[in-house]
Amino acid sequence: MVIRWGICSAGKISHDFTVALKTLRAEDHQVVAVAARDLKHAQEFAQRHSVPRAYGSYEDLAKDPEIDVVYVGTIHPHHLSVGVLFMNAQKNVLCEKPLAMNLKEVQELIASAQKNHVFLMEAVWTRFFPVSVEISRLLSRGEVGEVKVVRAEFGAPLTHVPRAVRKDLGGGALLDIGVYCLQFVLMVFNGEKPESIQATGVCLDTGVDEAMVVTLKFSGHRLAVCTCTITAELPNEVVIVGTKGTIKVPAHMWCPTSLMVNGVETQYPVPEPALPLNFINSTGMCYEAEEGPALLPSQVQNYTINTHNFTHLRQKQVVTGRWACVFTVLCGAGLKESSRMSHADSALLAEIMDEARRQVGVVYSQDSL
Amino acid sequence: MVIRWGICSAGKISHDFTVALKTLRAEDHQVVAVAARDLKHAQEFAQRHSVPRAYGSYEDLAKDPEIDVVYVGTIHPHHLSVGVLFMNAQKNVLCEKPLAMNLKEVQELIASAQKNHVFLMEAVWTRFFPVSVEISRLLSRGEVGEVKVVRAEFGAPLTHVPRAVRKDLGGGALLDIGVYCLQFVLMVFNGEKPESIQATGVCLDTGVDEAMVVTLKFSGHRLAVCTCTITAELPNEVVIVGTKGTIKVPAHMWCPTSLMVNGVETQYPVPEPALPLNFINSTGMCYEAEEGPALLPSQVQNYTINTHNFTHLRQKQVVTGRWACVFTVLCGAGLKESSRMSHADSALLAEIMDEARRQVGVVYSQDSL
Repeated sequence: MVIRWGICSAGKISHDFTVALKTLRAEDHQVVAVAARDLKHAQEFAQRHSVPRAYGSYEDLAKDPEIDVVYVGTIHPHHLSVGVLFMNAQKNVLCEKPLAMNLKEVQELIASAQKNHVFLMEAVWTRFFPVSVEISRLLSRGEVGEVKVVRAEFGAPLTHVPRAVRKDLGGGALLDIGVYCLQFVLMVFNGEKPESIQATGVCLDTGVDEAMVVTLKFSGHRLAVCTCTITAELPNEVVIVGTKGTIKVPAHMWCPTSLMVNGVETQYPVPEPALPLNFINSTGMCYEAEEGPALLPSQVQNYTINTHNFTHLRQKQVVTGRWACVFTVLCGAGLKESSRMSHADSALLAEIMDEARRQVGVVYSQDSL
Repeated sequence: MVIRWGICSAGKISHDFTVALKTLRAEDHQVVAVAARDLKHAQEFAQRHSVPRAYGSYEDLAKDPEIDVVYVGTIHPHHLSVGVLFMNAQKNVLCEKPLAMNLKEVQELIASAQKNHVFLMEAVWTRFFPVSVEISRLLSRGEVGEVKVVRAEFGAPLTHVPRAVRKDLGGGALLDIGVYCLQFVLMVFNGEKPESIQATGVCLDTGVDEAMVVTLKFSGHRLAVCTCTITAELPNEVVIVGTKGTIKVPAHMWCPTSLMVNGVETQYPVPEPALPLNFINSTGMCYEAEEGPALLPSQVQNYTINTHNFTHLRQKQVVTGRWACVFTVLCGAGLKESSRMSHADSALLAEIMDEARRQVGVVYSQDSL
């Protein structure tokens, strides 16, 4: 079964996502259409990536009957309206992170997915990297004992990038890159809601956060600290410290290709891109997908039998670790969300970011609607 | 000029301190007496280290007229009473960290030093390591641009150690080891008072903190995050991130022998000990002191001329970086505090720890007196 992709927006991340899809087998994944608000942009994108159809509006893309899934690569202030547009047109949606501007918007997107019986997932690509899958496996086996402290950080000099600093574009360190730190922590703690959230931050003149430290306390005396900044390059590691050892994800924690378990490092290189990428390791958006189709038929059967068995599903995902494959499986089997990056996971991420922003005083126009 | 040391308490840290002193020239530093509450312990200590006089009480040590400086190696609940005892007997005091249980006690110690015109310094040995001195030099030269984020952590499995967990012994992660993280941050930011302090922590049944994350916000949009725990081994690094690069202090940040500046590592090994040590790198308590006496005469002259020129003093210290030498110079020149670890530095450390404990709910009996 081939998945027919529509690409919403012809920007840098959509370019990289399309290159990543090209590392998958063409029998399994095809990009059949692209849409941009400017038809010329869409046409250029279509020509560059050999995409059959180009549209000058997202509405036209939504009307295309031969699309299974839309990848939403717009900036996050547009995620809600665009996501609802496609889901109302019965399209499955893979939407870039953060899923929306705040919890209220995330809940509206989830409600739309449920109403329309379509699949919706926040494109937290990190979570499906082999490194992340291996971490989940190690933690489930108690490889480092009881986890006590998680430290995650993402800092990069981005103050020259309008998207990162302008409030109307959804700027701010937390939503743009801090989300990667929080998602990592929540992955380690299996989506558990923290007992407390504390945030310290500093803001640019534009009113968005240039840097933030968010400390989370979880049950069982477990702590996590997330640091993000758009003013400087941090080491950009994740460290998971347990009573019996340490798991370290060296830079770049959001697209990790290396894992250190008690000092022993293993490499997990991403596929080579066919075209130059805008962002580092972007082909990891479809990691190891070349193996996915081989697993597909048996897995679909598996999930048809075990449609409601989410524990089983999680285990399967741990074994395969290929989000594109998982995505295929989920759509094929009629499941409407991923258990590895579930609706609840997205909602919790948004809830934590809302509270952190409240403490630091970052308010978007979407917060008051 | 020889400095005649008295050692207060015959425990593990006093052992290590005495071994460290032995790496200095005997013409410059001599241990002439040791005191313990149990005379037998003092006598055993004296025999092991060839110390001429052993006392069965701290009071007897205080009465010894042939002592210039007392090293206080007791646990911190005793620092105030013991420190005041020695200072009232006109002894200079080098007191282990934390200087006392809270700000109020620290202020009493400082007042006693001022009243008695004696030298008092909190033994924050880290600050005088060559690595720390080099960091100050690099920062003063703007080597990594404008510092934006400092991350410091110290975690070690210490829950089996009574001193670390019992409230009556001053237990708790923050006072025992978190103090090293905070002092590092304050060193980087030149003793500046933070604009805000936020602490998240978890406590043992004994009522002391097993782990804490303290986030500090400084002027100029600078953030620092300190993590300490007595339940697990953290990476125990310090990272200082600026707009133009990164300084990293690999483990063990409290007694560092290595420094990475923009990825380039330099080693700074500590002197070899003549006896086995209880704690790692303890000879670093007298780092490079073998060179100190050579600098002494000219420096004393220098400081006699520049008694009030603390900027000059700081620069000199940066050049020499030997606390034993600095200590000698300061006593010799009549200065009553170190500018590299000043009374104000100790007071600010205590103030921050008081506030962090208040937020987490760690209260010692000394807090209510």
